[in-house]
Amino acid sequence: MILYDYYRSSAAYRVRIALNLKALSYQQIAVNLLESEQQQKPHRARNPQGLVPVLEDQDTYLTQSLAICEYLDEAYPHTLQLLPTEPQQRARIRALAQLVACDIHPINNLRVLKYLKDHFGAASSDTTKWYQHWIIEGFQALEQLLANSDATGLYCHGDSPTLADICLVPQVFNANRFKVGLDQFPTISRIHSSLEALEPIAKAHPSQQPGA
Amino acid sequence: MILYDYYRSSAAYRVRIALNLKALSYQQIAVNLLESEQQQKPHRARNPQGLVPVLEDQDTYLTQSLAICEYLDEAYPHTLQLLPTEPQQRARIRALAQLVACDIHPINNLRVLKYLKDHFGAASSDTTKWYQHWIIEGFQALEQLLANSDATGLYCHGDSPTLADICLVPQVFNANRFKVGLDQFPTISRIHSSLEALEPIAKAHPSQQPGA
Repeated sequence: MILYDYYRSSAAYRVRIALNLKALSYQQIAVNLLESEQQQKPHRARNPQGLVPVLEDQDTYLTQSLAICEYLDEAYPHTLQLLPTEPQQRARIRALAQLVACDIHPINNLRVLKYLKDHFGAASSDTTKWYQHWIIEGFQALEQLLANSDATGLYCHGDSPTLADICLVPQVFNANRFKVGLDQFPTISRIHSSLEALEPIAKAHPSQQPGA
Repeated sequence: MILYDYYRSSAAYRVRIALNLKALSYQQIAVNLLESEQQQKPHRARNPQGLVPVLEDQDTYLTQSLAICEYLDEAYPHTLQLLPTEPQQRARIRALAQLVACDIHPINNLRVLKYLKDHFGAASSDTTKWYQHWIIEGFQALEQLLANSDATGLYCHGDSPTLADICLVPQVFNANRFKVGLDQFPTISRIHSSLEALEPIAKAHPSQQPGA
C-alpha cells in the first residue's frame, strides 16, 4: 500500500493511526501542501478533490479518510478491528468520529481559512478565533457524549481503540496547536492521554513523519 | 422509530431518504430550527450537539446522518441495502458520500453562515457567494469522479441507489436553492433526474414534510 500524505494533514494523520493500529505496512509519499502539490496534476489524477490522504491499494486510489479507515477494517479483517460488530455500538462510534470529521475539521481546513483571508480580509487573530470556536463548540458536545456514557472506557468506546479515537487524536493535536485549553474537557483529555501512550499512535504523530 | 427532524435540514433529508428507500416506518417530530429549538434543553438531551436529525430506535438516540444511514443498513439487513458487500465498492460509495457530507455541507451549515454575518459582517451576497463556492468546488470533483468511472450507472454507483445518492439529492436541492447552475455538471444532473423520479426519494423532499 502507498499512502500519499503530508505530515501536517489531520486527515492523513487519521489514516496513519489506522494503518499502524492494524499493523499494516505501507510506503509514504509526501504531497507537499505548503507548495500546493495537492492541487497539481499528478495528485489530481489520484484524487480530483486535490486533497490528501489518498491510499493506493490493489491498483485503486482510495480517498476520504473515514472511508479509507473503514475499508481497512473490511479488506483486512484479521487485523485489529476499528469497529465492533453490534449495530448500535458501531453507530455510536461513527457518530463520535463524524462529530469531529464532519462538524469540526472541515470548517477549519486550510482552504476555508484561506477563503476567510482572501474574501473577508480576516487577520491571523480572526482565523485563530474561528479555529478555536469550532473546536470548542464541537468538544463541548463530545465531552458530554463521552462523560455521560457507560460505553466510554479507557478510550472513546470501551478499552480498545476505535474509529472515534482515530479522529480524536489529530483533533486534540490541532486544539493544542491553536491553544485551546483542554482543562475544560477532562474526559477528552484523559482519553487522549491514554491514546498517545500507544506506540502505533505515537508513531503516526506529525513530528515523526518524513519532511516534518 | 422516531425521527427528530426539520423540513429544511439537509442532514435530516438524507435520513428520510434512507428510511423511505428501506421502506421502514417512522414517526416524525419537528424540531423548529427557525426558532432555535435544536439548541434548547429537550433537544440537547437527545443530542448534545444541538443538531438534527436524531433517530430514536430501541430506546437509543442516534446522531449524525451518515452514521444513522449505516446503522439502518446494519440493523435492518433485510431491507434495500445502501452499500454493497465488496470493500472497494463500499469505499468508493462512502468517499462520494463524504465528499458531500464532510467537504461541502458542514461549511455551508446555518451556524457557519451565522458566524460569517456576526463576526465578519458578511452581507447576504457574501454568504451566497460562500455557499456557491463550496458547492461548485465539491461538485467539480464529484462530477469527475462520477463521469470517469465505470462503476457509475443510473445512479452514483450502479443501478441501485446507495449512500452516495442519499447525500447527493439534498446537496443538489441546496445548489438549486442558491442558484448554482447545474449545466456544468452533466453527470450529476443526469443522476439527480433519475433519483428524483423515485417515489421514496420524492416523498422525502422538504416540500412534502409537515411544517413546510
